[in-house]
Amino acid sequence: MTVTATTTADLRSESVRSLYDQVMARCKDADHLNGIGGILHWDQEVMMPPKAAAVRSEQMSVLVGVLHEIQTSPIQGALLDELEYRKQHEDLSVVLNPYELANIRLARKQYKEETLVPVDVAKAMAALNSKSTAAWAEARKESDFSKFAPFLEEQVKVVRQAIGYKIRGGANEEARKINEKARASLGLSETDECYKGYYQGLMNIYETGFKEDRLQVLFADLKKHLIPLIAKIKAKDFQHDNSFLCRDYDISKQVEFSHSLAKEIGFDTEAGRLDVSTHPFSGGAHPTDVRMTTRYTLSTIKNGITGTVHETGHSVYEQGRNKEYLGTPVSFSLSLGIHESQSLLWERMVGLDKPFWTYALPLLKEKFPEDTHLQAVTVDQFYLALNRVEPGFIRIESDEVTYPMHVILRYEIEKALIEGDITVSEVPTVWNAKMKEYLGLDVHEDRLGCLQDIHWSFGMIGYFPTYSLGSIYSVQIFTHAREQIPGLAEHLAKGEFEVLLRWLNKNVHQQGSLRESGDDLVFDLTGKHLDSSLYVKYLTDKYTAIYDL
Amino acid sequence: MTVTATTTADLRSESVRSLYDQVMARCKDADHLNGIGGILHWDQEVMMPPKAAAVRSEQMSVLVGVLHEIQTSPIQGALLDELEYRKQHEDLSVVLNPYELANIRLARKQYKEETLVPVDVAKAMAALNSKSTAAWAEARKESDFSKFAPFLEEQVKVVRQAIGYKIRGGANEEARKINEKARASLGLSETDECYKGYYQGLMNIYETGFKEDRLQVLFADLKKHLIPLIAKIKAKDFQHDNSFLCRDYDISKQVEFSHSLAKEIGFDTEAGRLDVSTHPFSGGAHPTDVRMTTRYTLSTIKNGITGTVHETGHSVYEQGRNKEYLGTPVSFSLSLGIHESQSLLWERMVGLDKPFWTYALPLLKEKFPEDTHLQAVTVDQFYLALNRVEPGFIRIESDEVTYPMHVILRYEIEKALIEGDITVSEVPTVWNAKMKEYLGLDVHEDRLGCLQDIHWSFGMIGYFPTYSLGSIYSVQIFTHAREQIPGLAEHLAKGEFEVLLRWLNKNVHQQGSLRESGDDLVFDLTGKHLDSSLYVKYLTDKYTAIYDL
Repeated sequence: MTVTATTTADLRSESVRSLYDQVMARCKDADHLNGIGGILHWDQEVMMPPKAAAVRSEQMSVLVGVLHEIQTSPIQGALLDELEYRKQHEDLSVVLNPYELANIRLARKQYKEETLVPVDVAKAMAALNSKSTAAWAEARKESDFSKFAPFLEEQVKVVRQAIGYKIRGGANEEARKINEKARASLGLSETDECYKGYYQGLMNIYETGFKEDRLQVLFADLKKHLIPLIAKIKAKDFQHDNSFLCRDYDISKQVEFSHSLAKEIGFDTEAGRLDVSTHPFSGGAHPTDVRMTTRYTLSTIKNGITGTVHETGHSVYEQGRNKEYLGTPVSFSLSLGIHESQSLLWERMVGLDKPFWTYALPLLKEKFPEDTHLQAVTVDQFYLALNRVEPGFIRIESDEVTYPMHVILRYEIEKALIEGDITVSEVPTVWNAKMKEYLGLDVHEDRLGCLQDIHWSFGMIGYFPTYSLGSIYSVQIFTHAREQIPGLAEHLAKGEFEVLLRWLNKNVHQQGSLRESGDDLVFDLTGKHLDSSLYVKYLTDKYTAIYDL
Repeated sequence: MTVTATTTADLRSESVRSLYDQVMARCKDADHLNGIGGILHWDQEVMMPPKAAAVRSEQMSVLVGVLHEIQTSPIQGALLDELEYRKQHEDLSVVLNPYELANIRLARKQYKEETLVPVDVAKAMAALNSKSTAAWAEARKESDFSKFAPFLEEQVKVVRQAIGYKIRGGANEEARKINEKARASLGLSETDECYKGYYQGLMNIYETGFKEDRLQVLFADLKKHLIPLIAKIKAKDFQHDNSFLCRDYDISKQVEFSHSLAKEIGFDTEAGRLDVSTHPFSGGAHPTDVRMTTRYTLSTIKNGITGTVHETGHSVYEQGRNKEYLGTPVSFSLSLGIHESQSLLWERMVGLDKPFWTYALPLLKEKFPEDTHLQAVTVDQFYLALNRVEPGFIRIESDEVTYPMHVILRYEIEKALIEGDITVSEVPTVWNAKMKEYLGLDVHEDRLGCLQDIHWSFGMIGYFPTYSLGSIYSVQIFTHAREQIPGLAEHLAKGEFEVLLRWLNKNVHQQGSLRESGDDLVFDLTGKHLDSSLYVKYLTDKYTAIYDL
C-alpha cells in the first residue's frame, strides 16, 4: 500500500499539501481495491466456472471488508478533520487547485457516508441482498409476488435504517430539512417514525446533489406530454416494416460487426475488452482496463448493435476520464445519470439517427452480403424500423418514447414505499393501475410487472430516476454539441466520430466530479438548467414525423 | 471479513477451540485474498488488455500489502503464542485432530516467516522484481548477459538479506545449524559474512522440510547414471520417425482435443477453465475455481497435448484438495515438488505411455479424419515418436532423460552463487562448461544458456530442484499405485482414469500439508524414503528398449 503511516498527534505541523497527498494516497488504495472488485465482477459474469459462485461471494465479502477498513480508517478521518480546520483558518485555494479542492470535499463526503452506517448494519444489508436476490429470482420465475414480498419488506426496513443513519448524521442536509419540516407539520417528535425526505437521501446515493422537487417538475412535464404522445401513436394503429432486422443473423458475424462499431466510435481495445454476458454492462477497473459486455440474439440484429453502442458510450466515458487525477474522487463520474447520458447519447442521439446509419448501413450490408433482403434496404427504411414505438410490459425492451413512463411508474412506487405511503402488499395493484394509465396495458402476470427488475431485491431504491435523468441530460448535451460542432451530422455520416468523442471527453468525461450536481454540469456547459422541454420536443418532433401524427 | 475482533488481554480465558477458530478465520481471509490474487494473475496472462499492465501491478501491490497486514497482525501472533503456551501445558490432541494440529503448526510457521522479514525489505524485493524481470527480458532478447548481471547481483543480495532474517529468526533450524557449523569451522564470528546454509533455507521456501544433503545424494545418483545413458543414446545416432506429429494441425481442433482429454482425465470444467496463454500454468483461486492454460503450436500436436495433460495433473490436484479444511493451511499442497509430481505423473507416467495412447490414439484419429498419415500410425509408432530423446539447450523443451541434467546444472550454479562460491560474472562460463559435461553441447549464445529462465530475475533461487524432485516423487508414487491398483494399465488403456485419480485424491491430494516433508509423505505411502534408483531404473529400462541400447 502507498499509504503513509503517520500518527494523528502531529498533523498540525504538516503542510496542506502533505495532508492532501496522504488523503489521496488512501483514496488511491481504495480505488485499486475497487478496481479489483470490478475485475472480479466482470470475471463472475463472463468467465467464472459455475461452481465458484460460493467462494467468489466470500472473496467479495473479504474485499469489501478490507475496503471498508481503509475507507473508515481513523487516520483518514483525522487528516480530513485537520484539512477542515485549515480551511476555516486559511485560503486553501492558494495551495490547491479546484480539482484538488473538490477532492477534499468528495473525500470528506465519502468518509462521512462510510462511517455513518454501523458495520453490523452494512453487513446485514450485504447478507440480506444475496438471500433477497435469490428469492426475487425464484418469485419472478413463478410470477408469485408473495414469495418476494417478505424480502422486499425487509429491504425497505434496512434501507430506511441505513439512510436514516446518514441523514441524521448530516450526510444529506437537503433530506434532513425535508424530514424536519415534515415532522414539524405533522407534530411528530424526534423519536417518532417519519420517513419523509428519505427518498431525497436515497436518490442522492446515485444522483448526487440533485433535488427531488426538481425531479418532480421534470417528471410531471414528461407525463403531461408523453402519455398523450404514446396514446396518439397507439391510435394510429400502424407500424413500419422491420422484418429485415428480425431474421437469423449469424452470431459470430454480429460479434465482428459490434466490435468494429465500438472501435470506430473510439473504444480503445488495448485499454479494454468487449465480451458477452447475459446482462450487458460496462465495468472493469480503470480507464486502461474497461470491461464491457453485450448480448447477441440470433433472431434480430437490433439488440446486439444498440446494446454495444450503449455500453460503448459508458466505456468511452471511462477511458476518457481525467488522466491527471486518476484514482482520486474528482476523476470519477459525477452521477449515474451523467454516466447514463453518455451511453444514451451514443445509443439514441447518434445510433438511432440517420447520419449514423448513412455511414454504418453499407458496412452492415458488407458483413452480410448473402442477405438479399438487407441489401435492398435504404437508410430511411432502416431508420424507421429501428425506431418503432411499441408500448410493452418490459422496461429494458422498451423504446425511447415509452421508456420514461416505465421509470416514472417505478419512481412513484418506490418513493411511496420508502416514505410509508403504500405498503409492500399494495405494490402489484398500484403497479398495474399505473401501467394501464401510462401505457394503456393490462398486466396479468407480476413477472411482466412488478417482479421484472432486480433493483429492489438489491436494496437499490432511488436508482431508477437516473435512467430518465440520463435521457434528459443526453438530449440537452447533444443539442449543445450540435450547436458547438460545425457540421456534426456530416461528420457522423462519414463515420468521423472522433470530433464528437473529443468534445465529450473535454466537456463531460474530464469534468468528472468537479461540480456538485449534474444540473450544475449541464448549466455550466449549456448555460441552461436541466430542461425536460428539450427532451419532450425531441421526442415529439421525431415521432410526429415517423408516425405522421 | 470473518475475523473475530478480540483483544489479546483475555486470551487465557478462551478455549483452545475458540483460539484455533480465530486463527483459522484469519487464515481463511488470507486465502481469499490470495485467491483474488490468483484470479488477477490468470486475468493478466489470459484476458487483460495490454495498457492495463501498469494499473494491474499497482493493484497487486495494494493487495499484497493488505494480505501482509492480515498475515502479520499482532492479534494473530498473540493467538498463536497463546496456543503455543497451551501446548506446553495441556495435550491439545484431546481437543484437536491431527489436521487441526498441523494447521496450528503451519499457521505459526507462516506467521513467523511473514513477520521476520521487515516490510521495507519485502517492498524492496517486490520493486526489484519488476525492474529485474524487465532487464532479464531485454538481456535475453539481445543475448547479452551483461545487461542482466547487475540485477542478478542485486537479487543475490536481497535474497540473501531476506533469507538471512528468516534463518537468524529461527524460521529454519536446519539452515541455522549448517550456518553455525560453517562459521565454527571457518573461525568466523556472528557478524562476519557467511552464507553457508542459505541454500537450505531458500530451497525450503519451495520444498518444505527437505534436507539439502539428501538432495545432493539424489542428484549425485542421477548424474552417475543419466550422463552415461544420455551419451549412449547420442552414440546410437538414430531417431524414431515423428513426422506425423510435426505437421500442421488445425489449432481449433487441437483445442477441442485437449479439452476432451482434460475432461476425460477428470478435470471438472464446472469448477475450472482451460484457456490459452504464452506460458502455460495452473492457478486460480480455489478447488471450485481452478484456471489452467496451455499453448498450442500449429506445426506439432505434441506440445498442446503434453502441456494440457501436465497442467491437468496440477489442476486435478487442486480440485481434489481436502474439502473439510479448505482455506486452512493443511489443505494446501505440501511443496512444489509434490505438486509437480502430480503433473508429471499424468504427463509422463500416464501420458507418454502405451496404455494411454491405446485409448487416446483412436480419438485423435477421429478428430483428424482427413490426415491419412496419422490414420496409418500404430500405438507403438506413436509411443516411439512421443519419446524421442534429443539433448538440447532449452530446459522447457527437453525430454524426460535430459531434463534432470538441466535442473542439476541450475541447482549447482545457484547454490554456488548464493553461498558465495562463484560470482555473478562467472555464471555464463560455469553454465557452458556444465552443458558440455552433462549433455555434450556447446552453448554459443546466453539466450540459449544462462538467460533462458525467468526464475532468477524474480529472485526465485532454490526453486529449480523441485522440478526433479517432482520427477522422482512421481515415479515412486506411480510405481506404488500400479502395485496397489489391480489392472491399472488395462484401466488406462480403456480410458478409465477415475480409478487412478481417486487413488491420488486419497493418497496425495487430500493429504495436503499434514506431514512435514514430501519425503515423509512418500515414506508413509510407499514404506520407503524417496529413492532415485526407481527413477533411474524407469528411465534406463524405458530408453534401453526404445533405443535398443
